[in-house]
Amino acid sequence: MTVAAVRTTRIIHVRQDSGQTVMKSLTPENAGLSLMGQRTSAPPISWLMQLALSRQDIISLAVGFTDNASLPVRETRDLIEDLLSSNATAPDILQYGTGTGNPDLRSLVADRTMRADKHACNVMDAGGVHATPAQDIYAADATIITNGSQQLLYMINECLCDPGDIVLVEDPTYFVFLSLGQSHGIEFRGVQLDIHGASHRHLEEVLENAKMNGTLPRVKYLYTPTYFQNPTGITTPFSRKIRLLETLRNYEKDAGHPLYLVEDAAYRELRFSGEDTPSSLASSLARDRVIYTGTFSKPFATGIRVGFGILPHHLHETIARIKGNHDFGTSNLLQHILRRALVTGKYDAHLQTLQERYSFKSQLMLEALQNYFPNSVSYRIPKGGLYFWVEIPNAGTGLNSDVFASALKQNVLYLPGDFCFADDPTRTKPDNHMRISFGGATDYSITNGIKRIGNALRECRIN
Amino acid sequence: MTVAAVRTTRIIHVRQDSGQTVMKSLTPENAGLSLMGQRTSAPPISWLMQLALSRQDIISLAVGFTDNASLPVRETRDLIEDLLSSNATAPDILQYGTGTGNPDLRSLVADRTMRADKHACNVMDAGGVHATPAQDIYAADATIITNGSQQLLYMINECLCDPGDIVLVEDPTYFVFLSLGQSHGIEFRGVQLDIHGASHRHLEEVLENAKMNGTLPRVKYLYTPTYFQNPTGITTPFSRKIRLLETLRNYEKDAGHPLYLVEDAAYRELRFSGEDTPSSLASSLARDRVIYTGTFSKPFATGIRVGFGILPHHLHETIARIKGNHDFGTSNLLQHILRRALVTGKYDAHLQTLQERYSFKSQLMLEALQNYFPNSVSYRIPKGGLYFWVEIPNAGTGLNSDVFASALKQNVLYLPGDFCFADDPTRTKPDNHMRISFGGATDYSITNGIKRIGNALRECRIN
Repeated sequence: MTVAAVRTTRIIHVRQDSGQTVMKSLTPENAGLSLMGQRTSAPPISWLMQLALSRQDIISLAVGFTDNASLPVRETRDLIEDLLSSNATAPDILQYGTGTGNPDLRSLVADRTMRADKHACNVMDAGGVHATPAQDIYAADATIITNGSQQLLYMINECLCDPGDIVLVEDPTYFVFLSLGQSHGIEFRGVQLDIHGASHRHLEEVLENAKMNGTLPRVKYLYTPTYFQNPTGITTPFSRKIRLLETLRNYEKDAGHPLYLVEDAAYRELRFSGEDTPSSLASSLARDRVIYTGTFSKPFATGIRVGFGILPHHLHETIARIKGNHDFGTSNLLQHILRRALVTGKYDAHLQTLQERYSFKSQLMLEALQNYFPNSVSYRIPKGGLYFWVEIPNAGTGLNSDVFASALKQNVLYLPGDFCFADDPTRTKPDNHMRISFGGATDYSITNGIKRIGNALRECRIN
Repeated sequence: MTVAAVRTTRIIHVRQDSGQTVMKSLTPENAGLSLMGQRTSAPPISWLMQLALSRQDIISLAVGFTDNASLPVRETRDLIEDLLSSNATAPDILQYGTGTGNPDLRSLVADRTMRADKHACNVMDAGGVHATPAQDIYAADATIITNGSQQLLYMINECLCDPGDIVLVEDPTYFVFLSLGQSHGIEFRGVQLDIHGASHRHLEEVLENAKMNGTLPRVKYLYTPTYFQNPTGITTPFSRKIRLLETLRNYEKDAGHPLYLVEDAAYRELRFSGEDTPSSLASSLARDRVIYTGTFSKPFATGIRVGFGILPHHLHETIARIKGNHDFGTSNLLQHILRRALVTGKYDAHLQTLQERYSFKSQLMLEALQNYFPNSVSYRIPKGGLYFWVEIPNAGTGLNSDVFASALKQNVLYLPGDFCFADDPTRTKPDNHMRISFGGATDYSITNGIKRIGNALRECRIN
């Protein structure tokens, strides 16, 4: 190293240092962030997750993780061994794929959804309605493969919503979906839930209000997780879904554009064995208003992130382009693992194991709730999904509540219910629920976690 | 099925059908799309890819795919077998990970980049400058793992740019990056390239113009692929990068916010053996203005999509939040494959094979160019990456040009050079280049593809 070179280096570094005085301490506030960058807030769950990680003795029933013990380790090993053992096909699996997803996997998704819908149509639903899906409506070219269904939810917002636009959500709804919207600058309006899902009567009221106050043109779609809804566990019958669609359609003329229904079927296959689920709207004649989203991550393995959507044809191209900009297509290896799992029947075999496992775990949590929770609290017994949704009479459950503080002292975490209600200026946000998950918890944690929450509630004089 | 039920069903379907008359044929134009949805155009390459797929006899040297023959099939099988053979650790691999990425992989990324930068600092660069990275600057908590580096480029735009903001790019640049920006509503200004990368003198001119015409506050960052640039193959020495940073910094006060430099190191490791690469800016003292992006996809396997970034601390949190909204974290399985590949040395062993393979393929293409191309065309011999960038004197190469038509007739595809130039209203877009890739082509296709393009050129009387 020559002296001259050292000097040059120093001079450059001095310049850099002195340059830093222009903007002394950079924070997100003065860092030149976009509006999205500025408004994207920390997800509400992150603090709870940090807390769970930092305290080893804590039991967390807050996060919707999936069952660890039943993860398909051997199955995945065998699938990959099969996939990569043929030198003729293996390179394709490790190469780029197409942006919208592996064609075989897309066909499998379409066929699987059609089969499930057809099966459901043989059962009359609570509204006395049989769905009669057209036979030809599924085409692999209406589907898209994504990085979990969350990426698709994100892209739906990008495709349909400008900042300031309004999305209708259920009261309560999947709280992560609210974070996505918040970041995108979306406003929310809550639609009341009854035991059959979103109320079409209240939906009409919300739309009528929007029409009256001139905000209807900003309303873009209704988001509804229709199977074992997160957090309430409610499943929406086909007849209700059709009524929701009709209600939306009645306001399209005044909105000036289609009003879509986004049907999130993430938990559709996580039902406890023996239950039938209603047909989806993806097989209804109104499918040009329906965006159907699903995932293989929760039913198979969350570490293998593959989701999918069945889209109206006129939106498919745009979402596919956005996907191409996001990432040039979901990992081909992951897609091939799922494709092969479906084809070999390993996926369905695993699903059955998982359904039995969750059936057992939900039963275990139910027994603990019956044993340890005060009589005044109420909850519905879920028939699928990963959650109990518990209502506490006359007591807040939020991060600043006595109940939450008491639970923390008892070394247990639940998800405060107010996380699941959108910021809707037209109503007061309920704050007396908790979402409790049996998904990722061990049997020990389920029983003892509920016992601890029960103690916390009694400590707050809830009996 | 009762008659009543059938009737109900029919009525509903009739209502749906009649409802469809409200908006007869839905197209993206009347589908209620967002501004982003409306402006996201088809990627320019998609037509070429369709064409290549539809004509079996065509040789495509247009797309930057990677070498099929050397994909790490056995390595990947062994890695996964190792990962999933222990029941103690396997479930973690198939479960959700953390949003910013596996902590071990993040450390490996940081260490690897630091080692490469340190090694580079022992070599004086073309500007006579030694980089002296501080020892303590890398921390795993400045890194993030993404779905390929493309997702990170997307999120950088989301984090820093509102529609109408300006990003500075090289003339020419990575054309997919231009698609991302187009979708986001970003405007571009081109900065001239010389043999040492983006010209800091022209950068100053561009910034000065922006200052004069009042657009400087909308300028957010300079995007530069600094290693074996796509498409030109140019590598930017450390001294030049420092000068670019200094130039940007001189305009920060007038811009009113930091002016970042996004250093895209996608091809850094795809160098032909024996060459040293300059230190990156991630190890410079000015790292609070530098966003460093890299990928394991191209050097290992494009079907395993894992990219990464090293970010200024004040941006890390925001990008991590956006990533959490995108997808809740990159597939844990894919991250573990790469982690283990790095730890076991399989990654580096594969990289060496790949470097030798691309060295051979580029040599093969060079020989074909020397044998079959007219003397009047010019190109630089790349020392890494996947491309030759060829300049044709006085003849257009675009999709509507005689040269392209002639190439099509010869059954060969190249990437028209104008794809790689941004829509910059302040200069005319050059249209007399072609990007030719030896990445995914077979040896046969390389030789014969070049021969065919040579014939096409001669057919257009280019000699």
